[in-house]
Amino acid sequence: MFNVDLNCDLGESFGPYKLSEQQEILKYVTSANIACGFHAGDPRVMRETVELAIKHGVKIGAHPGLPDLNGFGRREIKITAQEAYDMVVYQIGALQGFLSTCNETMQHVKPHGALYNMAARDPKLAEAIAQAVYDISPSLILFGLAGSELTKAGEKVGLRSAHEVFADRTYQSDGMLTSRSQSDALITDQEHSVSQVVKMVTEGKVTSQQNTEVSLKADTICIHGDGEHALAFAKYIHETLKKQNITISLII
Amino acid sequence: MFNVDLNCDLGESFGPYKLSEQQEILKYVTSANIACGFHAGDPRVMRETVELAIKHGVKIGAHPGLPDLNGFGRREIKITAQEAYDMVVYQIGALQGFLSTCNETMQHVKPHGALYNMAARDPKLAEAIAQAVYDISPSLILFGLAGSELTKAGEKVGLRSAHEVFADRTYQSDGMLTSRSQSDALITDQEHSVSQVVKMVTEGKVTSQQNTEVSLKADTICIHGDGEHALAFAKYIHETLKKQNITISLII
Amino acid sequence: MFNVDLNCDLGESFGPYKLSEQQEILKYVTSANIACGFHAGDPRVMRETVELAIKHGVKIGAHPGLPDLNGFGRREIKITAQEAYDMVVYQIGALQGFLSTCNETMQHVKPHGALYNMAARDPKLAEAIAQAVYDISPSLILFGLAGSELTKAGEKVGLRSAHEVFADRTYQSDGMLTSRSQSDALITDQEHSVSQVVKMVTEGKVTSQQNTEVSLKADTICIHGDGEHALAFAKYIHETLKKQNITISLII
Amino acid sequence: MFNVDLNCDLGESFGPYKLSEQQEILKYVTSANIACGFHAGDPRVMRETVELAIKHGVKIGAHPGLPDLNGFGRREIKITAQEAYDMVVYQIGALQGFLSTCNETMQHVKPHGALYNMAARDPKLAEAIAQAVYDISPSLILFGLAGSELTKAGEKVGLRSAHEVFADRTYQSDGMLTSRSQSDALITDQEHSVSQVVKMVTEGKVTSQQNTEVSLKADTICIHGDGEHALAFAKYIHETLKKQNITISLII
Repeated sequence: MFNVDLNCDLGESFGPYKLSEQQEILKYVTSANIACGFHAGDPRVMRETVELAIKHGVKIGAHPGLPDLNGFGRREIKITAQEAYDMVVYQIGALQGFLSTCNETMQHVKPHGALYNMAARDPKLAEAIAQAVYDISPSLILFGLAGSELTKAGEKVGLRSAHEVFADRTYQSDGMLTSRSQSDALITDQEHSVSQVVKMVTEGKVTSQQNTEVSLKADTICIHGDGEHALAFAKYIHETLKKQNITISLII
Repeated sequence: MFNVDLNCDLGESFGPYKLSEQQEILKYVTSANIACGFHAGDPRVMRETVELAIKHGVKIGAHPGLPDLNGFGRREIKITAQEAYDMVVYQIGALQGFLSTCNETMQHVKPHGALYNMAARDPKLAEAIAQAVYDISPSLILFGLAGSELTKAGEKVGLRSAHEVFADRTYQSDGMLTSRSQSDALITDQEHSVSQVVKMVTEGKVTSQQNTEVSLKADTICIHGDGEHALAFAKYIHETLKKQNITISLII
Repeated sequence: MFNVDLNCDLGESFGPYKLSEQQEILKYVTSANIACGFHAGDPRVMRETVELAIKHGVKIGAHPGLPDLNGFGRREIKITAQEAYDMVVYQIGALQGFLSTCNETMQHVKPHGALYNMAARDPKLAEAIAQAVYDISPSLILFGLAGSELTKAGEKVGLRSAHEVFADRTYQSDGMLTSRSQSDALITDQEHSVSQVVKMVTEGKVTSQQNTEVSLKADTICIHGDGEHALAFAKYIHETLKKQNITISLII
Repeated sequence: MFNVDLNCDLGESFGPYKLSEQQEILKYVTSANIACGFHAGDPRVMRETVELAIKHGVKIGAHPGLPDLNGFGRREIKITAQEAYDMVVYQIGALQGFLSTCNETMQHVKPHGALYNMAARDPKLAEAIAQAVYDISPSLILFGLAGSELTKAGEKVGLRSAHEVFADRTYQSDGMLTSRSQSDALITDQEHSVSQVVKMVTEGKVTSQQNTEVSLKADTICIHGDGEHALAFAKYIHETLKKQNITISLII
């Protein structure tokens, strides 16, 4: 029997600004990563998003980012490991505040955007983030790019790491994602996407752009909540996994 | 036997900027109110301040403020009760993050500056803040101006409220502080300050500017941590209270 | 011959967030108020909006607001007159930067949201804002609520003031807008809106909710750029004014 | 006859926070770089600093930085050339606002911290910044690290570039500063500092750490305004240059 988690970023509106998030996505995912106010989100949005996730029975994780609202946390900032530790503790704590008011437990932490990418490559940053999560609570699960420095660091400090894979991205023979600057970075064909996912979940392998078979752990799949076809794709992948008797749940 | 708590604002530095805080103040106070990043403080400052307070055995409280770094949280912002609720939950949570990493428990919450003053007057705002604190944890103690709407709201929602009095401010016959716009708002004579405090603690009374005796609950005294004479005054009041066999501790 | 200006707020997107602004609105208005980064907008949005307004031949004004991105500048902040002066100078200057790079002249300044409303009532704040505009350049035109403290202050310091009226708001017998808290604050009927506007422009009068005729100067009409029917209404009012041989232009 | 400018960063306080700037430094420098609110400074601080510089007859320049108050603009942020252009236009404009209210002309622009360092190395970023300065006004002077990509870009777009040298830093044989991570990066001996400066100004050369003579243009010297010995050193270098009949002025 196989299982996999479907996760989705959520709560990325801010003040008067709404991202085109679709509540309906919550019907298809099992984990939600909620922005904590540094790259997106604000106290009102966080409260409303926590309530929404609870209502749909979706597990909640913190989605801490770099302090850059204007750049949506997507621009790399050269921070020290200590700064990463501090900003992750702050943001997890802030979201935990809203969970506490709902008597709800946090399931996981997934760094956002540039912080996610930097932590995938930089062992020191990765370890600082993993330590921050562990120090808040050893029962939290750390989401990171499958096979990256971040998932390694999580396991090293004593956390459970969830290896994240992407349905709509191609992979290189070293198991890393094809850079977005390459023309073949994205998978636009829905059938191709889904069959890549099913193979990753059931065989633990992905076919690289170099046509090699690469081993890969696939605990959770990143599902986009915005964009035109996001909802249709989420629904389709959810149904296909069910048909294949794959349990949609985070089991680590 | 009498007792009173001495509390002090802490952790109000930001990035490269240091307020003239004196660590030594921690020898004389029993409770520290730590800024949470909205009016002052940042993740690094919060971590360092939490560590410092723990090292000195001083109890820790959250000091949430209005989102106004440039105005230091001292300018009133017309927020709704719901906005007050949300920003208080966020800030308590963020500080709790740092306490969790140190396995330390939060003792209290004291709103800062304009939020403190607005909550002292406005029952709806006061209740929203009290509810936020209660929803995070019913065991937290809410610090507010003695006899104000905030301490009332705390008691109403089921919290313990700590009534705060000021050593260096004069009072009106209705028990409220003399407005700072008045020339007689401040007590500059140290002996006068201390005898006012001792009277408040041992008799539950203060002599108003109208020369009437006003009943007042005095659970905690606000001690300033900055300014030239702050440290000397903190030491003096600490010693005087001890000599009078007043226990310096928060007992509610 | 009569004339009136049609003005519209613009450039209120921020980072990844887009407000539902419709470029097409620029076909119908003659003045654009561009946000300056305090309540909305950012350097990229400001540059793009300036370029867009120039392309459509629409005159450009600064739209300075309170420093409150999260509240969109709609929450009152108790600032001093000096603080108002300083934040208006800063924001006009910042927008002027982008106009300079395009060799374009700024036509006007219209405070935003809570700053606009506070300046309509408070003579000291109004005068500080008017002085800031004058000190930057005496040839700038100050937009304010018709008959308010702000337009008065503009004239007092030596500026030309443009009296702004609203097509979709009802008026009281003292010439002020009906508060939004009242159920009859908004005019939803398009014909009613337009006939109110035509009357204000051609007769200098408005019929109040108390059924009295109130004198009113109408130099410019506030046109909304967002919302479902905004564009249709802008087009309709533009066409109706033209049919009545009213010149659509700011002439003061 | 030789000449050199002495420049100093100024206006880096923020809200309630004061940096230990000494007004007296204005007696010894001829150019002041004023922070524009992104890495430090705020509208009040900018106005007060402009007034102070004018009072002392010191020429004023904009000191634009990265949008990172908490990191004081010292952390590199991966911005695009267009983002650099936009944030420099915004900040120059904002400072120009305060100069306009004083009928004062801006002399120069010097990027701050990480933006300065990134622009010294990256030709595309450098050119975007230079273009922003030129588009605001071709008469502005661009301050950059002597011999760097930034001064080159300034000259390329048609600006006058002022080559900046450091009194208290050692140089490498390629004319670049010794990295601060090296133990020999700083010159702590005052005599050594001053003789390095005199040599750079009168001979156009510096002795590198590899003991080679390196050609270097020295239009302006960076003088620190904070720190214990800053004032004494500024005074000393000012007096020594005068004794050597070097005119202290920016002549390009």
